[in-house]
Amino acid sequence: MKRIMLEIAYDGTNYCGWQIQPNGITVEEVLNKKLSELLKEEIAVIGASRTDSGVHALANVAVFDTNTKIPGDKIKFALNQRLPNDIRIQTSKEVSPQFHPRRCNSRKTYEYYILNRRMDIPLERLYSYFVYMPLDFEKMKEAAVYLVGEHDFMSFCSAGSQVTDTVRTIYVLDLTKENDMIKIHIEGNGFLYNMVRIIVGTLVKVGLGVYPPEHVKEILDARDRMASGPKAPARGLRLVQIAYNKEDVYQTKME
Amino acid sequence: MKRIMLEIAYDGTNYCGWQIQPNGITVEEVLNKKLSELLKEEIAVIGASRTDSGVHALANVAVFDTNTKIPGDKIKFALNQRLPNDIRIQTSKEVSPQFHPRRCNSRKTYEYYILNRRMDIPLERLYSYFVYMPLDFEKMKEAAVYLVGEHDFMSFCSAGSQVTDTVRTIYVLDLTKENDMIKIHIEGNGFLYNMVRIIVGTLVKVGLGVYPPEHVKEILDARDRMASGPKAPARGLRLVQIAYNKEDVYQTKME
Repeated sequence: MKRIMLEIAYDGTNYCGWQIQPNGITVEEVLNKKLSELLKEEIAVIGASRTDSGVHALANVAVFDTNTKIPGDKIKFALNQRLPNDIRIQTSKEVSPQFHPRRCNSRKTYEYYILNRRMDIPLERLYSYFVYMPLDFEKMKEAAVYLVGEHDFMSFCSAGSQVTDTVRTIYVLDLTKENDMIKIHIEGNGFLYNMVRIIVGTLVKVGLGVYPPEHVKEILDARDRMASGPKAPARGLRLVQIAYNKEDVYQTKME
Repeated sequence: MKRIMLEIAYDGTNYCGWQIQPNGITVEEVLNKKLSELLKEEIAVIGASRTDSGVHALANVAVFDTNTKIPGDKIKFALNQRLPNDIRIQTSKEVSPQFHPRRCNSRKTYEYYILNRRMDIPLERLYSYFVYMPLDFEKMKEAAVYLVGEHDFMSFCSAGSQVTDTVRTIYVLDLTKENDMIKIHIEGNGFLYNMVRIIVGTLVKVGLGVYPPEHVKEILDARDRMASGPKAPARGLRLVQIAYNKEDVYQTKME
């Protein structure tokens, strides 16, 4: 028995998110089915990030256990042949049997894209949030500074989360603009339910002039979801990277 | 009666190209239908570029004649409300009744995107050509130089074209690379049937080492479609701009 880790890219447009659920097709479900067919065993992957319906990923992480003789780094080729072309395994490798993608510490990177112009561009519609009203980019950058560091992000957590500890650390929150496209790059040690999308929705309210930048500090202090902005649409969000400590991933092999 | 000019952006993924045809839905057909409904007249647009199935556009141009009282620059808003979200009118305005988007001289700009890496990225799959084998970018740039200027591009024209004069001028043919994405920017006074895609297919053969860069000159001289490379897939191509002389567009109004 060995444990295999996958890095998975997907276009979330046609999926009801990562996690298996009765109402529609999910990425986890497709992976389990195709892996079980390929390896002729019952496979159930454990995912790192249970992305919401419509959210994209360049490298979500999942592990599964298998008795296959196919070398870990070859599994991606065989699996990609069976997967639909909106899901693509980027890497596959054998890892420590103890490695668990949700229980081990990680640094997660997300990007969010906002298209800010008078007219929508069809080629961007699936991967960005189109905002017609002009956004004050400098004010959004100013507001973002208040969110960097360790804070209680309870105001930025959707109802329905079972998490009790809502303190998280944001290492990086960078906004850049190229032509009409605003890119929000965010890295942290973990994110609450819908946290990135609520941060973006709040920054958009600042950009629209509804909140002054410094109001973001008050939103944090309120520790109340009602204080923050709406959650921005899923399609603008992509999970870019999940980085683990090498020791967690390879632990047993190094012994 | 007045003539209205539209600049139209579309995601070509779900269309059988621009021109009306019996086998599938086209952009021209959707525009005619939605304009006729909106303006309560029988509308038939005249398009500038009859893009192929799967090709995208940021600003194709079309004109039509109408008796409507809606001001030219307002038509885009009313029309966008009726159009599917993969077609978006960028501008609408009244132009000279003599202005014809195919008969007037223009400068056309296309871009072609090639994703060159080991693994495909699902978020790029609809708008780029994925090439797994490593491409020699410098050699592709070298080869492109031979195509700039006025040449007989008969070798770069698909069979089935009724054009007899195959001399065209390429003003700009620039290749740039950002991470794994190669962007080919091409501007000219006109393009033969499939010309951009055959140029790209030929440059890819150079990048793969099948042709040396200077072989492109021999391909031009051969004046034979069999001499050039395959046509690259439609999805990587987008029509970016069609620029006209102001006098052609506004002629009557200036008198």
